[in-house]
Amino acid sequence: MATRDALHFPATQAQQLDPYIALPSSPIPSKPFVTLTFATSLDSQLSLAPGVQTALSGPKSKAMTHYLRSKHDAILVGVGTAIADDPSLNCRMEGVGGYGGEGVVGQPRPVVVDPKGRWEFTAESKVMKLAKEGKGKPPWLVTRAVIDKEKRTLLESVGGKVFQMHSQSTSSVPWRDILEELARAGIQSIMVEGGGMVINNLLSVENFNLVDSVIVTIAPIWLGKGGVQVCPAARLEDGQRLPVGRLTDVKWVSLGEDVVLCGRPKGE
Amino acid sequence: MATRDALHFPATQAQQLDPYIALPSSPIPSKPFVTLTFATSLDSQLSLAPGVQTALSGPKSKAMTHYLRSKHDAILVGVGTAIADDPSLNCRMEGVGGYGGEGVVGQPRPVVVDPKGRWEFTAESKVMKLAKEGKGKPPWLVTRAVIDKEKRTLLESVGGKVFQMHSQSTSSVPWRDILEELARAGIQSIMVEGGGMVINNLLSVENFNLVDSVIVTIAPIWLGKGGVQVCPAARLEDGQRLPVGRLTDVKWVSLGEDVVLCGRPKGE
Repeated sequence: MATRDALHFPATQAQQLDPYIALPSSPIPSKPFVTLTFATSLDSQLSLAPGVQTALSGPKSKAMTHYLRSKHDAILVGVGTAIADDPSLNCRMEGVGGYGGEGVVGQPRPVVVDPKGRWEFTAESKVMKLAKEGKGKPPWLVTRAVIDKEKRTLLESVGGKVFQMHSQSTSSVPWRDILEELARAGIQSIMVEGGGMVINNLLSVENFNLVDSVIVTIAPIWLGKGGVQVCPAARLEDGQRLPVGRLTDVKWVSLGEDVVLCGRPKGE
Repeated sequence: MATRDALHFPATQAQQLDPYIALPSSPIPSKPFVTLTFATSLDSQLSLAPGVQTALSGPKSKAMTHYLRSKHDAILVGVGTAIADDPSLNCRMEGVGGYGGEGVVGQPRPVVVDPKGRWEFTAESKVMKLAKEGKGKPPWLVTRAVIDKEKRTLLESVGGKVFQMHSQSTSSVPWRDILEELARAGIQSIMVEGGGMVINNLLSVENFNLVDSVIVTIAPIWLGKGGVQVCPAARLEDGQRLPVGRLTDVKWVSLGEDVVLCGRPKGE
């Protein structure tokens, strides 16, 4: 197996993050352990524009992302990211399946949340190709739309699967329902990576308590107005604005020129 | 003199910040050494709304602010902050003038930038009272408006001064002009503290090179949409968006649950 592209993340750095990653637990809980992770600029932006790969964080940050991926059963992105970035959603850590390891051992399950069935993946989509090449697990698609037979067949041809959700809402599926469905499918830990819509949704007051751990990389750069911003919906109580969410048990770890913030959502 | 309210900032923490603070230099340069400093949430907001004192950073952060104030000849805020917050703009570090020290030794000069002359200060404004009590230096007002005689007299009665600027613009004064004027008045180092308008202005492409040092405290909290946000104007070159500014020589210092980012604007 090719290890040419394999990444390495130093054990000393990894030890700092490990307390914020799920430990295998049994019996299977009703939802996976959720780690929310992303990288922003100082002005809390993910990129200059949707689909624009913006060089924010350094190379060490990339290795960290793949280390974290190796420690979770699944990684989840929203359909916006799937469409804009054509992401790989696999793990390229030295030693995992496809990168020096056997089969797809250590590879996380790619999960794309696509309520309205907008993701027009093809056999050439990176996540599909990697699954075919044995360098990543086949993707799961979570939707409330009816996926047409051709797309479903294509997905299933690489071993992927459609999770058909039922929801009152015409545009979204409640996060708790998605997480419970994934838990039933054996996912005990999941790393949510983006994009902006998904992150802001999970940081909002309604969903913040579903998140178990947050790992945010911050790069010392300002992108300026108009990018994809992490900023959850305002929280209003009795007509008063309140902060939306705070982290507790906080650790700040320097990583090159960036900082990595680890914390746990604080219950109110 | 009362030391009851005096603050203390540990030397070990101070040593980390010192490389980012101006050293006395001679001969007097054409502009002061500019330290831009502020505290934001993770979603890059200063407060939930203008004038709303939002508990962002911890008590150690307050001591740091006053330590930094003690190390600068002047502190500068925009008129929005002067109106919304009625700020003290003095230094309450143990040992400076008014807090255990002689006279106003170690007190920074409060500078309010108010191009249109909107600041309706009175004898009861904190900065005026503190000047009268000998717990802070008398404020300077930088404006391009005509300040009426009554206001000018009131300001001068506590030892304050109006700096009358001339500008083509009807609404603003170029930052370089302000800084050069302050240098001529003997200010060799200045700490710019806010508010949102001033910070975004100094972080914009046109002014970023006037800033010598940036010290940002980040608290592990999301405020949610609608607050006062630090996010400079977009930078467009040949129709392409580019990052507005990056810091170099970066240091991240943990301070309680918060982190303090120190860095220097990177020339392009």
